[in-house]
Amino acid sequence: MPEYKAPLRDMRFLIDDVFDFHASYAAIGAEDATPDMVGAILEEGAKFCEQVLAPLNRSGDEEGCHFDNGVVTTPKGFKEAFAQYAEGGWMGLASTPEYGGQGLPHSLGLVIGEMVGSANTSFGMYPGLTHGAMAAIGAHGSEAQKSTYLSRMTEGRWTGTMCLTEPHCGTDLGIIKTRAVPEADGSYAISGTKIFISAGEHDLAENIVHLVLAKLPDAPAGTKGISLFIVPKFLPDAAGNAGERNAVACGSIEHKMGIKASATCVINFDGARGFLIGEPNKGLNCMFTMMNHARLGTGMQGLCNGEASYQGAVKYAQERLQMRSLTGAKFPDKPADPIIVHPDVRRMLLTMKAFNEGNRALAYFTAQLLDQLHSPEAGKREEAEALLAFLTPICKAFMTDTGLEVTSLGMQVFGGHGYIREWGMEQLMRDCRIAPIYEGTNGIQALDLLGRKVLGSQGKLMLGFTNLVHRFCQANAEHPELKGQVQRLAELNQDLGAITARIGMAAMKNADEVGAASVDYLMYCGYLVLGYFWLRMAVVAQAKLQAGEGDAAFYQSKIVTAEFYFSRLLPRTAAHRAAIEAGSETLMKLAADQFVF
Amino acid sequence: MPEYKAPLRDMRFLIDDVFDFHASYAAIGAEDATPDMVGAILEEGAKFCEQVLAPLNRSGDEEGCHFDNGVVTTPKGFKEAFAQYAEGGWMGLASTPEYGGQGLPHSLGLVIGEMVGSANTSFGMYPGLTHGAMAAIGAHGSEAQKSTYLSRMTEGRWTGTMCLTEPHCGTDLGIIKTRAVPEADGSYAISGTKIFISAGEHDLAENIVHLVLAKLPDAPAGTKGISLFIVPKFLPDAAGNAGERNAVACGSIEHKMGIKASATCVINFDGARGFLIGEPNKGLNCMFTMMNHARLGTGMQGLCNGEASYQGAVKYAQERLQMRSLTGAKFPDKPADPIIVHPDVRRMLLTMKAFNEGNRALAYFTAQLLDQLHSPEAGKREEAEALLAFLTPICKAFMTDTGLEVTSLGMQVFGGHGYIREWGMEQLMRDCRIAPIYEGTNGIQALDLLGRKVLGSQGKLMLGFTNLVHRFCQANAEHPELKGQVQRLAELNQDLGAITARIGMAAMKNADEVGAASVDYLMYCGYLVLGYFWLRMAVVAQAKLQAGEGDAAFYQSKIVTAEFYFSRLLPRTAAHRAAIEAGSETLMKLAADQFVF
Repeated sequence: MPEYKAPLRDMRFLIDDVFDFHASYAAIGAEDATPDMVGAILEEGAKFCEQVLAPLNRSGDEEGCHFDNGVVTTPKGFKEAFAQYAEGGWMGLASTPEYGGQGLPHSLGLVIGEMVGSANTSFGMYPGLTHGAMAAIGAHGSEAQKSTYLSRMTEGRWTGTMCLTEPHCGTDLGIIKTRAVPEADGSYAISGTKIFISAGEHDLAENIVHLVLAKLPDAPAGTKGISLFIVPKFLPDAAGNAGERNAVACGSIEHKMGIKASATCVINFDGARGFLIGEPNKGLNCMFTMMNHARLGTGMQGLCNGEASYQGAVKYAQERLQMRSLTGAKFPDKPADPIIVHPDVRRMLLTMKAFNEGNRALAYFTAQLLDQLHSPEAGKREEAEALLAFLTPICKAFMTDTGLEVTSLGMQVFGGHGYIREWGMEQLMRDCRIAPIYEGTNGIQALDLLGRKVLGSQGKLMLGFTNLVHRFCQANAEHPELKGQVQRLAELNQDLGAITARIGMAAMKNADEVGAASVDYLMYCGYLVLGYFWLRMAVVAQAKLQAGEGDAAFYQSKIVTAEFYFSRLLPRTAAHRAAIEAGSETLMKLAADQFVF
Repeated sequence: MPEYKAPLRDMRFLIDDVFDFHASYAAIGAEDATPDMVGAILEEGAKFCEQVLAPLNRSGDEEGCHFDNGVVTTPKGFKEAFAQYAEGGWMGLASTPEYGGQGLPHSLGLVIGEMVGSANTSFGMYPGLTHGAMAAIGAHGSEAQKSTYLSRMTEGRWTGTMCLTEPHCGTDLGIIKTRAVPEADGSYAISGTKIFISAGEHDLAENIVHLVLAKLPDAPAGTKGISLFIVPKFLPDAAGNAGERNAVACGSIEHKMGIKASATCVINFDGARGFLIGEPNKGLNCMFTMMNHARLGTGMQGLCNGEASYQGAVKYAQERLQMRSLTGAKFPDKPADPIIVHPDVRRMLLTMKAFNEGNRALAYFTAQLLDQLHSPEAGKREEAEALLAFLTPICKAFMTDTGLEVTSLGMQVFGGHGYIREWGMEQLMRDCRIAPIYEGTNGIQALDLLGRKVLGSQGKLMLGFTNLVHRFCQANAEHPELKGQVQRLAELNQDLGAITARIGMAAMKNADEVGAASVDYLMYCGYLVLGYFWLRMAVVAQAKLQAGEGDAAFYQSKIVTAEFYFSRLLPRTAAHRAAIEAGSETLMKLAADQFVF
């Protein structure tokens, strides 16, 4: 397994220099998040992830979770690590102090989440799902629900799940079959089977709080008839502690390609006692309030596995001796040169670096927008909300698709050794492969972006972002070192408007035009978005170099990587644009039985 | 596991209509390969692969190979299936009758190989490696070696291996450490450790014939000092049968991401008795003679896994009900529409179809060139050799990279179920992931194509192919239905000449320009090559439709897929071209310690 080192230098560059988290923390009144405090938390988080979580990553993959008659046991060491995670206060880092949290900004939670996910993606699923459930209860739960559930989840004593998918439906939640029948005491009897429930059953916590989508007896058909329920594994007793066992049982766990230490459960509800959260038939709305967090969190898994893979690949490329440089031996005293001398190995490493660091900038910026939802200024809140609507599906889909490419390149740098389990590189690709699928497939993200968000707002939600890019390009149009790249970005940004308008026109005649363009549209946007963040980083790095501040080698590396991104990766927009412009006609021509003969 | 059905309709389209194997069989004097005979062999091969090999694919992956104190046991059923394979005469299908083979053309062997690899990639490794070893012995072995080894391998009683890689070198064979010391009786004592030896030890055959690269005591340094040896597990006795055990032992087997039923072995030679094959210090040359076969065979694994994945994905998309068509419900009586109504699902399926069928055409054409190496006309032989030099690295790298993309898309069509082992879709991606790595990584293929072949021949080896495309485009420039696509292909073909010339000029000043451009150059060529074959198929399909011959639905499907390829996939050439033109400068700027901070 490649040794994980939290990329603190790059994190600090974004936090301190590019996005100035400190100023935005002050603006939202997060006074506790002083630069010193942030620095100390990063150091502590890095230590915990490097020393406790990373060493359990390979062993967790090899051992996997165990299922025995409804009982799920996590791999060796997970229970102890989770206890340390909870004791360290990591679960409640960004949670409200009212229920025991530390009240630090979400963006800081995301940075720690990156370290957790990079060190051990499977482990990260348990707190990740809990954070999602906490967000839903925090936003829609009653005071009593919050004080019972939220406080114990904040402590890490109880964990949470999201029970949406059923055997016959994942994307199409309108057709779920799980039923909720009102009981005399105001509770509901929940019956049905949910599948693919991450952290659905395990041995890490005293109790598991399932958030379950189900239908009331008189519910309207489709997505407007879905309600959300809290269904705890153990019902709270009078003091609010885990009491009587509820009629919830784990039927089996899935055997998967990766994230094997994350228990993926079939959960059977057999008249289990549940408690409505939020209003009846508004369950999907409750879910949507936490969608931004959950989708950004899934996008992070692309970065996490990509970062771990990159660290492994660079080290291997520096040490592995094989062949001579095409321009003559660089280390004639050694039997061969380290493979990092070869241009094609560098192409792979720089592709990984450009996606990872670009995705990190995108994610941190997006997390900062999540913080700004708590701004005292309404205008700031609205602006953040609009940008989030546009960027969230891009974070989820672009970061996971490119993350998968990065983990595959990491294997390729290792040659045959990349395919062997003990090196750990192939696990990263297997662990990463789920991220483009769950939390709404990347195809669904693309429909959300193009259909619901961009066209649904008559382009307004796109303009929020393209205006940002436009202003940045104007401000830097005469940048002595970067003006060529600024101009390229401005062109692509302008083209996006024209591309979007054409799709909008075509879609008015034929709704299939949206689905035909959506994935390539999202990828075009993703490359554009990363181009924007790469230039923002390059501008800051240039200024630092100019001023003679800080470590020149780091800033030079940023500028070279930006150059690489613009010359080698951004041109992929041309292919996506052509695919968008191909339209829907060819896609729809074949009858369903004309695909296989 | 998706049920495998050999795609006989598409195979026959290529064999009968597009490439007319029958005419070329007649031209090389392969009289036995009559259309009836070919038809019967395809049917028999399909039956064996569908009924015997495919059912062992999932179980083989779950069980894997077992290692116990030097003994390797293959998964349940493999031994019996291999016996059936041998009894059916499949091992010797395309081998010389002199040593018991059926003497049928290589191209027919490749078609059967496709079925074997699609049904069970791991199983296919055992005959695959044997065929490679047989080719080397056939080309370079003495008469005695042929009659001892080749005849028994043809029967499937003995299998073969290729022992190249060592712990410290894979690509860089010039630095191997395995030593061969001459003995008084003309044999050699071979000592050293080889790793990643596919089929290195198993329970399928009476004997295992290792072909081992090693250095003689006085060998020149580097690749010019490598010799090739036959080192059998059991030394042949006086009658040529497996006798005394040789000092060859399996030290362990690897735990891998995929192809788990294929034993990947560490093989220790401890003064084992070996027999020189070919001339001393010419071992790499001996290897090169079979490289074309082996690399095309590895390329096929991209197609094989891609085909199996496609079959699974289409069936799932036809059956899985989820959401309504964006243009209104297509099956209002069902709870939802089958997902094949959604444009984005079709985009995925058509991408898979376009790569699979395009890759199949490329592979069959290339196999036909291998047949033509046996043409009585010297001109034909030379022409075939030149085209093979150009196309072989493209087959290896382009078919495996796109095959991996196809298997990933197949998982994506399945949504969450794609990630679960029992559905079998994720296995296909894991099995496929090795193909871009072994038999020369795809990066090495790209250097071979651009550096050794194209620039090494001053462009001549490229012109052989681009002239073919040029003539085709001229002949079809006025095609009533396809002329737009013909023109696009002609442009890209012409651009390749210009692109190549520019790289050649730059490379004269700086050798790193070759490595900087190589992978994107190979991919550009790959998309161009597939464009050519898609148009060849479309032209034939149009003619059949015009003439009212055969099944219109099949030919329409071909034409639509060609359209899809041209509008959706071929534009990726623009991105590869831009990357090529970016040159080497940015790649080489960073110091080795500027990649991670």
